[in-house]
Amino acid sequence: MALRIGVIGAGAIGQDHARRINQVLTGAHIVAVSDVNAGNAAALQSEVAPDATLFATGEELIAAPEIDAVLVTSWGTTHEQYVLAAIAAGKPCFCEKPLATTAEGARRIVEAESAAGKRLVQVGFMRRYDEGYKMLKAVVDKEIGTPLMVHAAHRNASVAEAYVTPMAIHDTLIHEIDVFRWLLDDDYVSAQVVFPRKTSHAHGKLRDPQIVLLETAKGVRIDVEVFVNCRYGYDIQCQVVGEEGLANLPEPMSIVTRKKAKLQNAILTDWKHRFIDSYDVELQDFIDAAAKGTASGPSSWDGYVAAVTSDACVKAQETGEIVPIELPARPALYA
Amino acid sequence: MALRIGVIGAGAIGQDHARRINQVLTGAHIVAVSDVNAGNAAALQSEVAPDATLFATGEELIAAPEIDAVLVTSWGTTHEQYVLAAIAAGKPCFCEKPLATTAEGARRIVEAESAAGKRLVQVGFMRRYDEGYKMLKAVVDKEIGTPLMVHAAHRNASVAEAYVTPMAIHDTLIHEIDVFRWLLDDDYVSAQVVFPRKTSHAHGKLRDPQIVLLETAKGVRIDVEVFVNCRYGYDIQCQVVGEEGLANLPEPMSIVTRKKAKLQNAILTDWKHRFIDSYDVELQDFIDAAAKGTASGPSSWDGYVAAVTSDACVKAQETGEIVPIELPARPALYA
Amino acid sequence: MALRIGVIGAGAIGQDHARRINQVLTGAHIVAVSDVNAGNAAALQSEVAPDATLFATGEELIAAPEIDAVLVTSWGTTHEQYVLAAIAAGKPCFCEKPLATTAEGARRIVEAESAAGKRLVQVGFMRRYDEGYKMLKAVVDKEIGTPLMVHAAHRNASVAEAYVTPMAIHDTLIHEIDVFRWLLDDDYVSAQVVFPRKTSHAHGKLRDPQIVLLETAKGVRIDVEVFVNCRYGYDIQCQVVGEEGLANLPEPMSIVTRKKAKLQNAILTDWKHRFIDSYDVELQDFIDAAAKGTASGPSSWDGYVAAVTSDACVKAQETGEIVPIELPARPALYA
Amino acid sequence: MALRIGVIGAGAIGQDHARRINQVLTGAHIVAVSDVNAGNAAALQSEVAPDATLFATGEELIAAPEIDAVLVTSWGTTHEQYVLAAIAAGKPCFCEKPLATTAEGARRIVEAESAAGKRLVQVGFMRRYDEGYKMLKAVVDKEIGTPLMVHAAHRNASVAEAYVTPMAIHDTLIHEIDVFRWLLDDDYVSAQVVFPRKTSHAHGKLRDPQIVLLETAKGVRIDVEVFVNCRYGYDIQCQVVGEEGLANLPEPMSIVTRKKAKLQNAILTDWKHRFIDSYDVELQDFIDAAAKGTASGPSSWDGYVAAVTSDACVKAQETGEIVPIELPARPALYA
Repeated sequence: MALRIGVIGAGAIGQDHARRINQVLTGAHIVAVSDVNAGNAAALQSEVAPDATLFATGEELIAAPEIDAVLVTSWGTTHEQYVLAAIAAGKPCFCEKPLATTAEGARRIVEAESAAGKRLVQVGFMRRYDEGYKMLKAVVDKEIGTPLMVHAAHRNASVAEAYVTPMAIHDTLIHEIDVFRWLLDDDYVSAQVVFPRKTSHAHGKLRDPQIVLLETAKGVRIDVEVFVNCRYGYDIQCQVVGEEGLANLPEPMSIVTRKKAKLQNAILTDWKHRFIDSYDVELQDFIDAAAKGTASGPSSWDGYVAAVTSDACVKAQETGEIVPIELPARPALYA
Repeated sequence: MALRIGVIGAGAIGQDHARRINQVLTGAHIVAVSDVNAGNAAALQSEVAPDATLFATGEELIAAPEIDAVLVTSWGTTHEQYVLAAIAAGKPCFCEKPLATTAEGARRIVEAESAAGKRLVQVGFMRRYDEGYKMLKAVVDKEIGTPLMVHAAHRNASVAEAYVTPMAIHDTLIHEIDVFRWLLDDDYVSAQVVFPRKTSHAHGKLRDPQIVLLETAKGVRIDVEVFVNCRYGYDIQCQVVGEEGLANLPEPMSIVTRKKAKLQNAILTDWKHRFIDSYDVELQDFIDAAAKGTASGPSSWDGYVAAVTSDACVKAQETGEIVPIELPARPALYA
Repeated sequence: MALRIGVIGAGAIGQDHARRINQVLTGAHIVAVSDVNAGNAAALQSEVAPDATLFATGEELIAAPEIDAVLVTSWGTTHEQYVLAAIAAGKPCFCEKPLATTAEGARRIVEAESAAGKRLVQVGFMRRYDEGYKMLKAVVDKEIGTPLMVHAAHRNASVAEAYVTPMAIHDTLIHEIDVFRWLLDDDYVSAQVVFPRKTSHAHGKLRDPQIVLLETAKGVRIDVEVFVNCRYGYDIQCQVVGEEGLANLPEPMSIVTRKKAKLQNAILTDWKHRFIDSYDVELQDFIDAAAKGTASGPSSWDGYVAAVTSDACVKAQETGEIVPIELPARPALYA
Repeated sequence: MALRIGVIGAGAIGQDHARRINQVLTGAHIVAVSDVNAGNAAALQSEVAPDATLFATGEELIAAPEIDAVLVTSWGTTHEQYVLAAIAAGKPCFCEKPLATTAEGARRIVEAESAAGKRLVQVGFMRRYDEGYKMLKAVVDKEIGTPLMVHAAHRNASVAEAYVTPMAIHDTLIHEIDVFRWLLDDDYVSAQVVFPRKTSHAHGKLRDPQIVLLETAKGVRIDVEVFVNCRYGYDIQCQVVGEEGLANLPEPMSIVTRKKAKLQNAILTDWKHRFIDSYDVELQDFIDAAAKGTASGPSSWDGYVAAVTSDACVKAQETGEIVPIELPARPALYA
């Protein structure tokens, strides 16, 4: 029997995930929707989940006995409360980034889940499910020797006026923060941020580009260029240098043309297309684990570590200092 | 309600397609299986389709009222009879290559389907569903001007002892024959085959490599290297030269490494991985059309044209001549 | 003491070679110039060879005792007479393409040089001196097994109105004709030409593109696309397929940029830049051999074989037939 | 008349440069040699400069009236004295790296040359003459907007036991220090060094790899990975990120092969081959300027700035601090 999923938060990402579950993936069905904006919930229902029930609140949805598992795609400020409620109800829960808006909030989730004694939460760090990163991890694990350095870049063509300096960490670098821990099987111990000459294409409240320098417990040094007004496209680069050689994240597949004196490939400009397949894979993974009453993939602990690391990076932006990153002992549940 | 599919032919490809339908794709379910070898049918049932009914013959399966659509994945010699039976029953039918083992057989199917007055047959030419070919077609249609030439290669690392010279056409080139018609929106008018120096890695009954030269109605010249003991990997190359520029089929995504004095990418060696995603897409397309009582994608006419073209290529292998390729008028159903 | 060279033919290529000898290369000096157009000769003298003597005729220049070696860069129709004169005078002679305008003329040179009993003539097939082709030859000789096929292309952005169909052989393919014999250490036995749909960018007297199919004595099959109005650039491609793998001529070095949603390299548009370094190398080779009273590099025999092969290709253009290419026994001097 | 050059220091690099001047380049001749080891001088004479006179000391060679210009290729500790002597004699002087072993020594040279009132010294920073860097500079100057960041790497396959941590600056990074100033038309204001996890292939006295972070007066941020036991080859990478796009130093030309399931290019392993052509170009530039009684290319000032910057980088290695780089005003001679 199909897993019965309720969606809390019927905005763009909620609709998109609901569509995936009902139209692309197997083993689950959207049976309930809730949104603080009732119109959003009704729209999701009419467009992709015609047989879903509408709930007035997320808490009621979570509590409903006909719901097996929960998707939290509401505003970030509400994630913590819904995730805690799902844990309390013993129901598997997929939570979009961020797990909580503060490290303390994320830690409360870790503690609640630890107390529950089993994995119930998957955080929406989809890059771990990207085919390119998976291929890279396989090569890093087996072919290039001990990793020593990572050179990376996260570039957007442009960002909106509302995007300010710390968002380069919270909204952009957050993906690298999670995926490099997974890629290297390592944790961070310090962060530093340096600011190159500012591009004339960034508005007054944004220092852009930035270079974030991370150091790991095993001594790996990571440099990530974050450049969100790079103009030329959406471009994610990652090179791992190991003792025996180095490996690069693959470029997205594209057509090589020879035309007008140029040998050229298209570069993506819309971030939505870059990791689009990985959303399907992460949700299928959620469905498969939830069908067994548990969760896998990026955990509450991963969400908590990402929050702690982000906080350190923002402090590094503000101070120019090398900021230590300290974590409590990893709970046994996440060993 | 899910489309109820019956599978005729429970060998490797039948099992694989049944698994896709039951475990990966949406909107359909395998409810019946038939195989001349009852053990095969039972194995498919137990491994991927536990709620399927076993039928003694394909004809009985096709006739059963609880079957909405049919998958023909039996031995090639039986394809024609099952496809004709499905057309007679008015049921959508996905038929693996070849549509029939002779051009005459394929033509009988075309005539039966034309008489039925609607598309009911999809032939398993999966390359049209490959993301790379689709990207290439988009560029060929819009960015490089009128196509003038195609340079292509179909290389396998090695083939079994049973693989003899004409199989280079029937089993290997057949994919290029179909996909280039679709890519160029064109038909063939002649074929020629030249035999380079034979590789020492081919056995006595196989001339390998071969170069097939095709000419289209619009005057495009196509050269395809078919080299099935190329040793180094499974490699599909396609370059279209147009009036304004040229475009290449993308290489499969892979990790670039720098190691041991080499900058290198892995090349696939197993053909099964090269177009693996396209099998999912072609079957989903079949399901979606069959749910509406019809078929789309590669048609009986496409299967027939491929058969006529293959015959001309084999004749060209045997004679060394430039062999004309003549087709009857295209029936209105396939306009 | 520097080799004293006289130049016959003071047009663009003559000036360019004279400049190389006087300003870039070592071991030689231009001491004499002759041109049927006295103004050309004077211009070359004033611009790059101020201490050169002007001669009224090429024959007088060749006969002058203060001349050690001769550069023939006059109009093609006069090459034969000057080369024969240089052989008669026992002086090393560098002759630009073509060695003679007819195969018979080239054969007369071969016979005269054979009678002289030593190499005195170098033909200006500069691609053998190109670093890329030399790298390719090293790989073909050692790393990819017995060569079986060559896939090649010779593309120009556009050609002048005066360029007519047979010039695709005499002026364009001629370079491939020579360099593939050298690359493969092989000779041609047949030629065929097929004409794809004509580009709308070619004028009325030019069939463009063309595909030339060559077969060698060892059974290698070569296909060369000749496309002289390809629009996008000057592009020389060569892929050799061997029993164990394949190798490509390198692309010219260029800067990869990421800009305006494109990952791109510049493609050359001016043929003059493509093999510019090889002109220096071929002339230095000429100087070094001439200093010893002989010649090396592409020989009269190579020039003769190129002429015979070109004639067959033109006949293949005209007839659409597979035209055999027959050569007399190779004289011992060129063994 | 050919420029008469005397060589001081007849070791490997001295011999190599002398061979270039006598056998490859035009406009100069080696007429004198001196070496503290008389055997070296005699060997150079007999192998590449048979008509050179031997001098007992560099000072005598510099003073000899028949010498027009000087090549200083002796041990680094003696460079300063010979360059100062050449300046005093008013003779153009090509000096291999380093200009002097201390920043103070380099500054004395700058002051002497400034007092002389004209450029007489060229320092052997050959990368500025490399075709790839020149192509990159052309693109940086015109096509990618204002430079904001440089990501670079200098990797050697392995180093000898004698290579200790500060040599990563003095012997390795020194090339990047000079070439980035030229590439960006900028100067450094600070340096920081971070040490990743050490490769197990480095011996006890060498911290390897290192990442050097440089900041320029215009605000460009540069990160250079220096990894001298990278195992896989000699690899020089440089990517410049500008406001409108980015550009990469080209890879050295190489043959792409498809073989044994790999699509691969060879990577150089011997540093001597990487910039080999640029040695010819830099020396020809020296000859051409010296023929006019002066010098061009990398100046004493460039040598001095490189020395000051190197000292700061070594201090940064030792302290882990961000070390400021301060320079006196640039003398008018080097404006």
